[in-house]
Amino acid sequence: MEIFLMRHGIAEDLQPGEAEENRQLTTKGIAKTERVAGRMEEMGWEFDTVLSSPLVRACETAQILLESGLSEVLEIHPNLAPNGLLENWLEWFTSYRLTNPTAERLILVGHEPNLSQWAEILVFGQVFDRIHLKKAGVIALQAPDTEDLIGKCKLLWLVPPKCWI
Amino acid sequence: MEIFLMRHGIAEDLQPGEAEENRQLTTKGIAKTERVAGRMEEMGWEFDTVLSSPLVRACETAQILLESGLSEVLEIHPNLAPNGLLENWLEWFTSYRLTNPTAERLILVGHEPNLSQWAEILVFGQVFDRIHLKKAGVIALQAPDTEDLIGKCKLLWLVPPKCWI
Repeated sequence: MEIFLMRHGIAEDLQPGEAEENRQLTTKGIAKTERVAGRMEEMGWEFDTVLSSPLVRACETAQILLESGLSEVLEIHPNLAPNGLLENWLEWFTSYRLTNPTAERLILVGHEPNLSQWAEILVFGQVFDRIHLKKAGVIALQAPDTEDLIGKCKLLWLVPPKCWI
Repeated sequence: MEIFLMRHGIAEDLQPGEAEENRQLTTKGIAKTERVAGRMEEMGWEFDTVLSSPLVRACETAQILLESGLSEVLEIHPNLAPNGLLENWLEWFTSYRLTNPTAERLILVGHEPNLSQWAEILVFGQVFDRIHLKKAGVIALQAPDTEDLIGKCKLLWLVPPKCWI
């Protein structure tokens, strides 16, 4: 399976009295995210599921992926929030593969530094903090069929949004 | 400085009696490479130097970068050939930075598995064989100002040509 990791688009600064998790995408953030999603759709990508962090800026990003025709399924996953744990997501993924044996491609929408650290753990087995994922940037991994993914995935893409704008 | 690593485009199969180093880009290889170079030019990238492996398929790829307006300087570097050594290129690079103190961006054109292994060593300090660089694909690294680059660079891009086609 291919696992894509996408960082949410540019979000508004935190306003006084506003909860951090409610920050919304800016107009520019929406436009850039739509451009990235549109280019992926032109390339013919389809995702069996879009899995999003529960935070508003991630859900808005995920919604743009659906509106662009990249997937028909959106699911919220609590461990994609900034304090989420990779080991919990891996449990979810094991179960997902069992219940969706024909699934080929999944995209997770979340936050930094989590996504690039998760990618480093899945590909290289540890965190190096050497991968730089821009807002609306995309990482693509090739996962093996085995249950243990840690240090076993291949890094296929690290694409900043600028490549598509 | 930013260091880009680009794999040569699709080349012809080895013909009987032909030397391996003389394999040329195919028509499709030229078209894909021109597309990648054209997109990078549209994005506004400029390279102080294009440094190419001496093999024909790499020189042809490097020439396309020049013809696309990405650089005005092409230099051949023997250690970008398939049997080249990173430590020798690092010596070249130290000297290059001393003699080109205003240089900001360099692109190396070469071969696999060398380029993705060099990227892994420069970013993570060792070879994992987990980065997959397609023909005409591009890796971008952010190098520190210090002389020692090994394990000190950041991975900014891993972009397959399909992202631009």
